[in-house]
Amino acid sequence: MTEPAGPEPAGAEPALLAEVLRGDCVESRHRGHAIVCDARGDIVAVWGDPDARIFPRSSCKMLQALPLLESGAGAGLSTEQLALACASHSGAGMHVTRVAGWLDALGLAERDLRCGSQVPDDAAERHRLRDTGESPCQLHNNCSGKHAGFLTLNRHLKGGPEYVEIDHPVQVAARGAFEEMCGAPILGWGVDGCSAPAFVTTLRGFGTAMARMADPCGLGPARQDAAQRLVAAMAEHPLLVAGEGRACSELMAAMPGGVAVKTGAEAVFAAILPGRGLGVAVKVEDGSTRGSECAIAALLVRLGALDADHPAALRRLGAPSLSRRGATIGAIRPAEGFYEAGRRL
Amino acid sequence: MTEPAGPEPAGAEPALLAEVLRGDCVESRHRGHAIVCDARGDIVAVWGDPDARIFPRSSCKMLQALPLLESGAGAGLSTEQLALACASHSGAGMHVTRVAGWLDALGLAERDLRCGSQVPDDAAERHRLRDTGESPCQLHNNCSGKHAGFLTLNRHLKGGPEYVEIDHPVQVAARGAFEEMCGAPILGWGVDGCSAPAFVTTLRGFGTAMARMADPCGLGPARQDAAQRLVAAMAEHPLLVAGEGRACSELMAAMPGGVAVKTGAEAVFAAILPGRGLGVAVKVEDGSTRGSECAIAALLVRLGALDADHPAALRRLGAPSLSRRGATIGAIRPAEGFYEAGRRL
Repeated sequence: MTEPAGPEPAGAEPALLAEVLRGDCVESRHRGHAIVCDARGDIVAVWGDPDARIFPRSSCKMLQALPLLESGAGAGLSTEQLALACASHSGAGMHVTRVAGWLDALGLAERDLRCGSQVPDDAAERHRLRDTGESPCQLHNNCSGKHAGFLTLNRHLKGGPEYVEIDHPVQVAARGAFEEMCGAPILGWGVDGCSAPAFVTTLRGFGTAMARMADPCGLGPARQDAAQRLVAAMAEHPLLVAGEGRACSELMAAMPGGVAVKTGAEAVFAAILPGRGLGVAVKVEDGSTRGSECAIAALLVRLGALDADHPAALRRLGAPSLSRRGATIGAIRPAEGFYEAGRRL
Repeated sequence: MTEPAGPEPAGAEPALLAEVLRGDCVESRHRGHAIVCDARGDIVAVWGDPDARIFPRSSCKMLQALPLLESGAGAGLSTEQLALACASHSGAGMHVTRVAGWLDALGLAERDLRCGSQVPDDAAERHRLRDTGESPCQLHNNCSGKHAGFLTLNRHLKGGPEYVEIDHPVQVAARGAFEEMCGAPILGWGVDGCSAPAFVTTLRGFGTAMARMADPCGLGPARQDAAQRLVAAMAEHPLLVAGEGRACSELMAAMPGGVAVKTGAEAVFAAILPGRGLGVAVKVEDGSTRGSECAIAALLVRLGALDADHPAALRRLGAPSLSRRGATIGAIRPAEGFYEAGRRL
């Protein structure tokens, strides 16, 4: 257990990352911090403050899943299950049935989860629940795959049922992997919406961790294998990592080369580029998803990983806003200077 | 018609207005601009850039409604109708039936509106629509009261049916009132979600307009009467201006002295303090409503208009975030320095 961190040191001001236009005028702006790192922790490019303290939230689920594989607990898991362990899913049928089957195979059930119930984002499942009179359950929680992974590790570690407590062996293992990959002790922690601990690190620390997921050859054989399997599983099953229409799913499906991306609440976005050994981390200071989706798409284009003309890119780089009568009245765009499509890092 | 404005001149950086905490750590921040003005246009207090260009959006509906009364077109309107003309309502039954009755009294109908259909925010009305198989209509649009006001003015001006066009006599009148109250020509315009023009002015211009609504004695008798009637109608009917649980309604109900407040999309918030002759304008740069609601509540407390311990204030000054299992895991708060409850302006 760490004590709460002291006051955050003053660093570089956040950079303009995205602008929201109405007609020809800028109506709103999103500032934040963005970084591209390599596996040594060196900064390839940065906007804003590399030392900004961030909660990666759900964007670090692949780090939390490392002990699941390293321990051997997850030896028999499928690539679909590994993708779900890293997912913030929409609670669609494809997610819920797979998590339910996973728990069943462990001899466990929905009641063993500690993530809490959530109304699913997936419209078809929401309508099905309404039509049948069923209530949303913990399987619908966007983190239920991560929690199935926690329960799998917990069986191996023989921990108690309250596996989301900060000092539970499952969370001690998750924190250890997080700190080792970021290259520094955590700077604080809080509780996530799913009741699991949410750790604080710097933007640079998190970018380094993403680069190490992309280029894990310096990590030792067990971690290297775990990192490669998790990243490959995410890239192989984009829809299991998020869902229909969601940025993570659409962007991963649009990119060749096994690039994995993952969003987190309050406008964090991470990318893992195995082919180049680079990691990307974005935090829009104000927590707006529209800003982080625009910024990560701009960076992926700039890095040459994403085709700027792909519909999945266009939807994030220039998402239009519509009047109630369907006319286009504005759009979001990457801020000038942040995004130069012609210039590759 | 003005040409699109040139590039925005560089001004003061936005100020920190609100912080979002997770545990003891700041997770997200909202920056923006806030001002308190008097009716001469003098600045009483400012955070950020007084010359920041903003779209007041729906927070200026009371300005758009001035010609309705000054022209005599709205002479027979009730205070309820005047409150609806200034409203961004939830589309609840109380709103929809009153707007429908208003149109009926004009010999018009829902099809004469040009605001477009909107799924109502009000849960009871949404469920009623679902249960009866009815579709949301233009009466449910949060701006339908403003549009009923436009149609009332249009009957008087004998304009054509497309009353939302920028050069239609109704919009020429609305723009004229907007510019006179702000004390300057508009700096651009776009189209609002309801298809009506949305004008651009400076934060100081909009704060001045709000102060003139609070202290209209220098405006000439027709405008003075119109301003006083509109502000009084808003303060008298808080629920018609927004709806159950909404910030505008709860804050107005919590404040004595006829204070009127009005939110606008993309995180604008305005306040009119008749007792002190002051106007307040807030624009959170990133467009987040949680930030603008926190900032306006902090300013109203600081101005002595709102009791910091009132539940309506507490809900905006320290709104908690909850885990899916109902535990408090974070909160929003006014940024340090912006909010000093002990210090009155």
